Amino acid sequence: MTPTLADAERLDAADPLASFRDRFLVPDDPGLVAYLDGNSLGRPPKATAERLAALVTHDWGTRLIRSWSEGWMELPFEIGDRLAAAVLGAEPGQTVVADSTTVCLYKLMRAAAAMRPGRDEVVADRGNFPTDRYVVEAVAAECGLTVRWISPDPAGGVTLADVVDHVGERTAFVTLSHVAYRSAWIADLHGITAAAHDAGALVVWDLCHSVGSVPLDLDAAGVDLAAGCTYKFLNAGPGAPAFLYVAAALQDGFAQPITGWMGHAEPFAMGRDYAPATGMRRALSGTPPITGLIGVDEGVKLVAEAGMDRIRAKAVALTELAVTLADDLLDGVGIGSPRDPARRGGHVTVTHPDAKTLSDRLIAAGVVVDHRPPDGIRIGLSPLTTSFAELHRAMTVFADVLQMS
Amino acid sequence: MTPTLADAERLDAADPLASFRDRFLVPDDPGLVAYLDGNSLGRPPKATAERLAALVTHDWGTRLIRSWSEGWMELPFEIGDRLAAAVLGAEPGQTVVADSTTVCLYKLMRAAAAMRPGRDEVVADRGNFPTDRYVVEAVAAECGLTVRWISPDPAGGVTLADVVDHVGERTAFVTLSHVAYRSAWIADLHGITAAAHDAGALVVWDLCHSVGSVPLDLDAAGVDLAAGCTYKFLNAGPGAPAFLYVAAALQDGFAQPITGWMGHAEPFAMGRDYAPATGMRRALSGTPPITGLIGVDEGVKLVAEAGMDRIRAKAVALTELAVTLADDLLDGVGIGSPRDPARRGGHVTVTHPDAKTLSDRLIAAGVVVDHRPPDGIRIGLSPLTTSFAELHRAMTVFADVLQMS
Repeated sequence: MTPTLADAERLDAADPLASFRDRFLVPDDPGLVAYLDGNSLGRPPKATAERLAALVTHDWGTRLIRSWSEGWMELPFEIGDRLAAAVLGAEPGQTVVADSTTVCLYKLMRAAAAMRPGRDEVVADRGNFPTDRYVVEAVAAECGLTVRWISPDPAGGVTLADVVDHVGERTAFVTLSHVAYRSAWIADLHGITAAAHDAGALVVWDLCHSVGSVPLDLDAAGVDLAAGCTYKFLNAGPGAPAFLYVAAALQDGFAQPITGWMGHAEPFAMGRDYAPATGMRRALSGTPPITGLIGVDEGVKLVAEAGMDRIRAKAVALTELAVTLADDLLDGVGIGSPRDPARRGGHVTVTHPDAKTLSDRLIAAGVVVDHRPPDGIRIGLSPLTTSFAELHRAMTVFADVLQMS
Repeated sequence: MTPTLADAERLDAADPLASFRDRFLVPDDPGLVAYLDGNSLGRPPKATAERLAALVTHDWGTRLIRSWSEGWMELPFEIGDRLAAAVLGAEPGQTVVADSTTVCLYKLMRAAAAMRPGRDEVVADRGNFPTDRYVVEAVAAECGLTVRWISPDPAGGVTLADVVDHVGERTAFVTLSHVAYRSAWIADLHGITAAAHDAGALVVWDLCHSVGSVPLDLDAAGVDLAAGCTYKFLNAGPGAPAFLYVAAALQDGFAQPITGWMGHAEPFAMGRDYAPATGMRRALSGTPPITGLIGVDEGVKLVAEAGMDRIRAKAVALTELAVTLADDLLDGVGIGSPRDPARRGGHVTVTHPDAKTLSDRLIAAGVVVDHRPPDGIRIGLSPLTTSFAELHRAMTVFADVLQMS
């Protein structure tokens, strides 16, 4: 039996995370039936609006430059540690928030290549998000490495067997996304990391679609290097700074190329020669972006309060409902995500030859999704803000849009 | 005769920019006698607080992901163009706001090195701000270049003659600050750019201490590449994104190393291979930091409204008063900035063997300045927010602090 709207409302009534929706700005917008793109841009926490106002008035406006020594200098590390504890499964002192995801990936891959001199290959995913592919190609070209591409099933993703087939004694590092941006496939973080290590290679994980959606245990998995974005399931705001993780054991040998004053052991000594700081400070380059960091802090706090286990449980329930409704209501639409919830992250991609047109019509009808070429429509499900009823109403509109097409 | 507080108040009464102070959050803080560090962190414009609130509620909170196509995607270029017109003396299509200054300098220097293959030297300033020195050393090491250092007078800066002595047919690029962070020395933008070009080299100008303080004419000077920060005289907020300028004629050959999806000709096509966009989009890497960009926009608007000529005139008057009062009131203190106002930017550095201790005491007494090792105390003068009376009161406190030392 196809779940009804009443069934969805019952799921909402029993949802332990339902009250979190009130912690976000969810405007009374009659034109918006459902927001299913929180995996591209999460909604604003109410607390972020208050923190930004206080930042401008007090820290920036009143304390002025003194705020740097009164707290701002440590924010990239403090927020990184809170993110590590709540979301990454990582001990303190390994995570910093700074720069864009692209810049972080560039730093990590350059550092990884330098930590494996003499190795001349990298292993990467042909289906990965564009920035990951473009950066790995650029770094490979700079460092004289050849990229060995894995070409996975578009509705799935890179498997442990794929990695085992591609790594070897020539591999400097393996770089993959933990959750695929297109299919939401969850890669085997533990197995792939171990396989890379067995070959003497490092791993650089992109966690953009994992953080705040799928539980992570970077320390237990032995992950070397990772980065990810904060404006999706962490709700940190448009273009908020990314985070960067370097395992403690690797930090002394971690040399990133963009050696700015904020990565120096003593930034305000303004010394003649660059001397990288001990620990994660060496991952920084320029002055930390404080307004963006505030958004990360508030986003992480809400995720920490909800807890990753409850978030994951609701994500599974939401994606299960989305798949069931897609199967039952959406004629001519395929499922471009794993059907096994254990292998599926926080969104469901449905496929259709006219995906671009359909996606535009859905948005015009108040169901905000996004299109991923060539034939994907992503249904993003944010456990802190998406309700089961919202999803149900969206899928009903989707069925109507299909019938009118 | 030493100018009195009444003289300073008369200057304020005649100041055509005096009313701009009301456009900023200048809290009535009895503990703060004077804020003379706007050259490190400018004060918040009131409009920025309002724009940030509207951003969270409307663009982010209500329009959500749709804001990217409704304006955010173009913000880095639109704000860059407004900055170019108001401050840089540059035609549209050459400026973009993104990343930190350090990351921008890294991109520019890598691109500059690649545009002069076969040349194996760069010319740089041993007295430049740490980030500039560390980045040029890193880029030189990566690209197989040798740095030819100029060591200027600490109370002055790099002269045209210094550059002529150091450039030659082996020079790939010359990189300097237009206004020295320590002495406020204004380098000869036109002459040095022309001298570099005469040798077949490019110039990479750091404009951090110029923008919003000293008029610039990048196009007329034939500047190739430039970057600068927005949180000083542009008042864009702590860690706000920097800007990057690439002269139109060089853009087709401009290849920066951090090739992310936002620099692609078609970011949302998510195509297989990196194809750099035409024009300034190719300078971008990751997702633009929207909260930071809003601060740049409002800061630039105020500077545009005030006009760089009036800002410069007031900066000269303020620095003249600071030098006169330092000479007359501050026993045992030297002037670490040019005495010729034509060669002096928007701050005055005074020198003293106990500069660090004095600086701490000044801040404790409510006069916020900053210390620059080894012996400098910078008196930053922001024409839009600093009054002559504020400066006068500060210098009186400074004299008291010296007498108690």
